[in-house]
Amino acid sequence: MMNKLLVFQTDFGLDDGAISAMEGVAFSVDFDLNIRHLTHNIPQYNIFDASYRLYQAINYWPSGTVFVSVVDPGVGSDRKAVVARTKNDYYVVTPDNGTLTHIDRFLGIEELREIDEKTNRLAGSDLSYTFHGRDVFAYTGARLASGKITFEEVGPKIDLKDLVRQELYGCHPIENGIMGQIDILDVRFGSLWTSISYKDFISCGFQIGDDILVEIFHNDQKVYSNRINYGKSFADVAISEPLIYMNSAYHMAVAINQGSFSKVYGIGVGSEWKITMTR
Amino acid sequence: MMNKLLVFQTDFGLDDGAISAMEGVAFSVDFDLNIRHLTHNIPQYNIFDASYRLYQAINYWPSGTVFVSVVDPGVGSDRKAVVARTKNDYYVVTPDNGTLTHIDRFLGIEELREIDEKTNRLAGSDLSYTFHGRDVFAYTGARLASGKITFEEVGPKIDLKDLVRQELYGCHPIENGIMGQIDILDVRFGSLWTSISYKDFISCGFQIGDDILVEIFHNDQKVYSNRINYGKSFADVAISEPLIYMNSAYHMAVAINQGSFSKVYGIGVGSEWKITMTR
Amino acid sequence: MMNKLLVFQTDFGLDDGAISAMEGVAFSVDFDLNIRHLTHNIPQYNIFDASYRLYQAINYWPSGTVFVSVVDPGVGSDRKAVVARTKNDYYVVTPDNGTLTHIDRFLGIEELREIDEKTNRLAGSDLSYTFHGRDVFAYTGARLASGKITFEEVGPKIDLKDLVRQELYGCHPIENGIMGQIDILDVRFGSLWTSISYKDFISCGFQIGDDILVEIFHNDQKVYSNRINYGKSFADVAISEPLIYMNSAYHMAVAINQGSFSKVYGIGVGSEWKITMTR
Repeated sequence: MMNKLLVFQTDFGLDDGAISAMEGVAFSVDFDLNIRHLTHNIPQYNIFDASYRLYQAINYWPSGTVFVSVVDPGVGSDRKAVVARTKNDYYVVTPDNGTLTHIDRFLGIEELREIDEKTNRLAGSDLSYTFHGRDVFAYTGARLASGKITFEEVGPKIDLKDLVRQELYGCHPIENGIMGQIDILDVRFGSLWTSISYKDFISCGFQIGDDILVEIFHNDQKVYSNRINYGKSFADVAISEPLIYMNSAYHMAVAINQGSFSKVYGIGVGSEWKITMTR
Repeated sequence: MMNKLLVFQTDFGLDDGAISAMEGVAFSVDFDLNIRHLTHNIPQYNIFDASYRLYQAINYWPSGTVFVSVVDPGVGSDRKAVVARTKNDYYVVTPDNGTLTHIDRFLGIEELREIDEKTNRLAGSDLSYTFHGRDVFAYTGARLASGKITFEEVGPKIDLKDLVRQELYGCHPIENGIMGQIDILDVRFGSLWTSISYKDFISCGFQIGDDILVEIFHNDQKVYSNRINYGKSFADVAISEPLIYMNSAYHMAVAINQGSFSKVYGIGVGSEWKITMTR
Repeated sequence: MMNKLLVFQTDFGLDDGAISAMEGVAFSVDFDLNIRHLTHNIPQYNIFDASYRLYQAINYWPSGTVFVSVVDPGVGSDRKAVVARTKNDYYVVTPDNGTLTHIDRFLGIEELREIDEKTNRLAGSDLSYTFHGRDVFAYTGARLASGKITFEEVGPKIDLKDLVRQELYGCHPIENGIMGQIDILDVRFGSLWTSISYKDFISCGFQIGDDILVEIFHNDQKVYSNRINYGKSFADVAISEPLIYMNSAYHMAVAINQGSFSKVYGIGVGSEWKITMTR
């Protein structure tokens, strides 16, 4: 049962008319859609972040909500345009380029369909090759969210084993602790969000109040090494002191209270950045 | 009578999934809410600006509108989570940390209640200590705006004398004129918005067309001194000329027509920055 | 027939309470308006960009939609406040300062009316001279979009020949090719969007796959000269290679695949920047 909620995410920014054209296309399909915006500031071409942000927000939405995520460096190539139905009944309309990685891993995908662009493409847009966000993804998402087409009418079913997936580092037990990767930043505040889940962290025996040795490596070179207190929240340490905490996505994070850990220590994100937390 | 309008303000920025998670929580409470955004670019931890921006916008909204403002450096401390009902029938859901200062002073608060987190907290969020914006404030705001709970069901009444207030400098008569503080910027255009109200300014006898001596002090050191024309609007002076005008919040402001007064003269905001306007 | 869709565009940014005050005014007119945002990041005072972004998005919206565009360096001068009805039945509420240029040229204006501020101005705002976006434009747009006033009730008809228009450079045939101007950037990605229409480009005989000589001039000084492949989409060239393509507004553009052409070569926009594409 569709609920008319349609949520857009892109790396297009908010400085021009692109997002508005996508909205216009969707409202032309159905005035009654409730169009919302996850973020349009995904770093350009960054499919990992697109995958992560979807996963960060999606579970808080009512089931039946349709998400359209367009981070699409391969627009115009033979990458597929797809719609996934998750096991908990969300829909994600997106290029099949790895954007579904976190959702596939952590929520599970029930069924995947390729968008048939012969029937699911904005009329008159055949000449347009660079803005599938408007011509294919927003249009198809709007038709699906409004109930003008069923999930089956999106196009033919694709075998789930053919889904494009990125590698996820996850976390691994090491002597006296655990190792993970810096996945992403809490951009505005500069906190490091790691791939170490709360569950795996806790299973090491760490407890609130522990001083934990945090070491951060850039391409195997150690760039940070210090003991940091594990607290419930920022208020557990003084202003400008560091802390380890469980973030709102239930993974372990490292922050400076009212400061930017990322900026102060020059820490980045991605597979080049590993972190260990040990006794 | 609630009108289903729910307006969010935070210092979270728009770069990640946080605001979307808040929206999702609210729509899960009630599909029919009309969720809007005041701004999410309050400078981090800046409670004064949060208080000011609320005050700048609130009176233009229909009565009954529910505002949720989350600038919350003390998340996880014992600061209270509250809902205020203003004398003119708006509701503001916020940490009690000074965010209600301008509204208390200029609109008046009718009644203040502490959010009872035993009943007013997103189910399953008990482990989450750092994102009350989602788990407590958006959730409670949505329930209030949708009529699922009454104002009384928010939680117990708090004595208004216990409200956390910031000091406001206001303005003071001086010889031949008036003194105030640079409260905040018109961020995009770099104009200085002062704490000198139009009413107090006019009571000094100043009139449109006057050349008024403006002096700006940083920690008692004079950093600007010049005569500036008091005009109705930017069009009263040539491009790149300065002017004094009444801003859209009915306080006196200083600008450069199509330039940034703040940048050109290096002027900041807050209690360290005083301004005088004299004959 | 009005459809309750009301779309705002300004150069006010999203950092303060201005846009929210505009929304509040509009919802105070009618709770049932569907208020959307084109962009609020038009570069300050840039009327050309305001005109272009409107044109870029407007045609994708359902007919009857009301747009309010406020880039208004002349606020407080005698510039007129107007509402245009386009030939394809959109409404644009705006200062008459050139913002309607692209729409007039490419869509056509059916009728133009001056806003009568005696009847179409927010009650109690008479003292406010600097925020017509809130007091006049949002208010009038909301009343029109909600059907509280008809187009005729906006105010008296203005002769279309009195509309303020900016000059548009367009494009011109030259020996072996075509010449245009760099109109605007795809801001987020740094691609150059030129004034050379797809139709005029194609009429030179260029075909997909051609290596075309692109030369860019800043005030008659040549600042770039190279052969660039004309492709359908970014995927036609390797990452970090340049290409010529037709953009989503059906004009010719120059980009670097996953790079910023504008930044790499220091190319700007406007009448000082000309571009030629020749065999």
